[in-house]
Amino acid sequence: MADTSTRIAPPHLGEPYLLTPGPLTTSLATKEAMLRDWGSWDDDFRAMTLEMRTRLLDMLGTGQGDFDCVPMQGSGTFAVEAMLASFLPKDSKTLVLANGAYGKRSVQTLEYLGRDHVVLDKGDYLPPRGEEVAQILADDPAITHVVAIHCETSSGILNPVEEISEATYAAGRKLLVDSMSAFGAIELQPSEIRYEALVSSANKCIEGVPGFGFVIARKSELEAAKGRSHSLSLDVHAQWAHMNKTGQWRFTPPTHVVAAFLEALRAHEAEGGVQGRGARYTSNRDVMVEGMRKLGFETLLKDRWLSPIIVTFFCPADENFDFDRFYQLMKDKGFIIYPGKLTIVDSFRVGCIGQMDEHVMRKVVEAAGASLKEMGVTDATPPAIALEERAKLAA
Amino acid sequence: MADTSTRIAPPHLGEPYLLTPGPLTTSLATKEAMLRDWGSWDDDFRAMTLEMRTRLLDMLGTGQGDFDCVPMQGSGTFAVEAMLASFLPKDSKTLVLANGAYGKRSVQTLEYLGRDHVVLDKGDYLPPRGEEVAQILADDPAITHVVAIHCETSSGILNPVEEISEATYAAGRKLLVDSMSAFGAIELQPSEIRYEALVSSANKCIEGVPGFGFVIARKSELEAAKGRSHSLSLDVHAQWAHMNKTGQWRFTPPTHVVAAFLEALRAHEAEGGVQGRGARYTSNRDVMVEGMRKLGFETLLKDRWLSPIIVTFFCPADENFDFDRFYQLMKDKGFIIYPGKLTIVDSFRVGCIGQMDEHVMRKVVEAAGASLKEMGVTDATPPAIALEERAKLAA
Ligand SMILES: Cc1ncc(COP(=O)(O)O)c(C=O)c1O
Ligand SMILES: Cc1ncc(COP(=O)(O)O)c(C=O)c1O
Repeated sequence: MADTSTRIAPPHLGEPYLLTPGPLTTSLATKEAMLRDWGSWDDDFRAMTLEMRTRLLDMLGTGQGDFDCVPMQGSGTFAVEAMLASFLPKDSKTLVLANGAYGKRSVQTLEYLGRDHVVLDKGDYLPPRGEEVAQILADDPAITHVVAIHCETSSGILNPVEEISEATYAAGRKLLVDSMSAFGAIELQPSEIRYEALVSSANKCIEGVPGFGFVIARKSELEAAKGRSHSLSLDVHAQWAHMNKTGQWRFTPPTHVVAAFLEALRAHEAEGGVQGRGARYTSNRDVMVEGMRKLGFETLLKDRWLSPIIVTFFCPADENFDFDRFYQLMKDKGFIIYPGKLTIVDSFRVGCIGQMDEHVMRKVVEAAGASLKEMGVTDATPPAIALEERAKLAA
Repeated sequence: MADTSTRIAPPHLGEPYLLTPGPLTTSLATKEAMLRDWGSWDDDFRAMTLEMRTRLLDMLGTGQGDFDCVPMQGSGTFAVEAMLASFLPKDSKTLVLANGAYGKRSVQTLEYLGRDHVVLDKGDYLPPRGEEVAQILADDPAITHVVAIHCETSSGILNPVEEISEATYAAGRKLLVDSMSAFGAIELQPSEIRYEALVSSANKCIEGVPGFGFVIARKSELEAAKGRSHSLSLDVHAQWAHMNKTGQWRFTPPTHVVAAFLEALRAHEAEGGVQGRGARYTSNRDVMVEGMRKLGFETLLKDRWLSPIIVTFFCPADENFDFDRFYQLMKDKGFIIYPGKLTIVDSFRVGCIGQMDEHVMRKVVEAAGASLKEMGVTDATPPAIALEERAKLAA
């Protein structure tokens, strides 16, 4: 991989790096794109919206011609809800593959929507496998759709969407993907992996600032979604039809966030697109995980399941370790980390995405080592129960 | 009113002034507040969210103790939908007072929500009056709620919310107010005008950038809203409960937009709060309307109904007048105006809100005069039918 030291500028104003799954550290150029105001009705802004949609579709590679891109105001969850409400017919039955917080959130959304569903709940992090999906679909012919989480950000696992997609379409069902934290860094080409729609947002791997999400869906599904949404604001078909007719968003767009995103999309292309971005994040992860392991930390996941997005570490068993203190010590050194979400054992997370490279990741590791020392933790090994947990996972 | 010439800086980079109802021209300081990244989970950002909510509540003046403020991701329409879904019980029946696009949008939202409703439709701009509301409520005891638009931005009329509130509560019903384009510039103190909830957004009279809205509601209504929303994303009770418990938004907040809004709130206070802001906008309107009338333009509304937010003018009858050309000529001179929304006669709108003062408004008038000349329009008088229209309105 090319040396990135000249490309990545440190955050200015002495602000900390965000080692979080978004909002994340964005480039100054991306933020500077917000230093002016746009009229949302004006041609200039319509051109920006069109360029954004075109660039996002281009990331699909071959096969994109069957798809269209519909941005949606609000956070990523809004876009997930919009996708589910728009592409799941009222009489559908959905299998949700859950192994963490975001799978559960899709389940909760279906409860709000009153759409029939079953859940394969794999707990905190175990991956849903192709054979399991095939079995459930074979046993329940009423199931029409499958919902999968691409990278389950709550543990950092990269779920096996290829297997899941194959099992889904082999059984003649349809797949919707929450690719919030993976899109833009991990390929999801419809020519390789079949799906009807995916969803992501501005402030993840494209490295924009938060304020909207987007749905990328087959045009045939977009057409079929007419009149299906429970919500005026979240109606994907209505947004799509209006945008294609007028070039405008139906309701006031977050103009500045869109301008920042466009700048971020250009930088994404300059970095080599999905492949270049994915390579930098992979290197970030490898350098960081190697360093943390040298300090004695253990990852929740075995290597094969680690995403280049965010990594969960077990908290050390040492009684001198205190997460709140560790968080503050890391913040004082210029790094904001993220609490864990495991139910069985204490953990924390370190993100690999945003304007950071391997040089920054080395400093993260140094800061973690220094923070342990300051807390009087001599050994970062997790409790035995943590390693027993991990042993449940296939290598 | 104090001279504002030193306070209002012209937009930089040669960008045009936005004479639109939002997104609008914001101050450079407001935009510069977006030049850093925040972790949404971090204490620093929680403090920002709290300060924002507190400042918004402070604008209510006395009586604010019974209210709380709940920000909501998305555009203003999202916040309106969230308010309606949360405060209208499933068995409610709502009277919507419509005299333009935003009243109609509330009706459409109730259709999506499947909530029973009737509409008093006054057409393009005629105001719904207190006696009419009283009569409808007397005739239909099943009606439980009234929805009013404070400033109906599609014509610029300032609807008589005092009358409407009095009629509503005299009949023992409840009022919800869409104060999107008025809140922050026109008083809406619960000690003066009774209501259960109001909604507005970041990019209107507080002069922030677009990306979220907020609901301000009686705590008793917020409590009663539990479990009522049709949407996970738009659930006001859930957002409120989570925010009060954790200090965080339920889902990723538009951090940069919040930072800009906080800066805008501080500037709003420095300008003298709602009164100071309202005074500047009133002066903007008065200078601009006077100048446009001198050029021969006529306002849709008689003076008593003109809001200090946005003003609708009839297009001149002169056959040399062409709106698209006028729009472009004004844009070339640094001013973006807004198309009209009247169904009966051609019109356009000029906004009075945003970082502009009377000096800017004088230049707007000059530009309009010069543009007329360039088009070869010697007389800006509207067609006779336009003036017949206006005669329908009470003085
Ligand atoms: C996989 C996944 N789905 C959904 C979401 C929700 O997005 P948001 O927090 O923007 O609502 C996230 C956020 O991190 C995510 O990682
Ligand atoms: C009175 C009123 N209500 C609702 C809205 C909708 O807000 P948004 O365009 O942000 O969705 C507007 C926007 O101008 C408005 O003026």
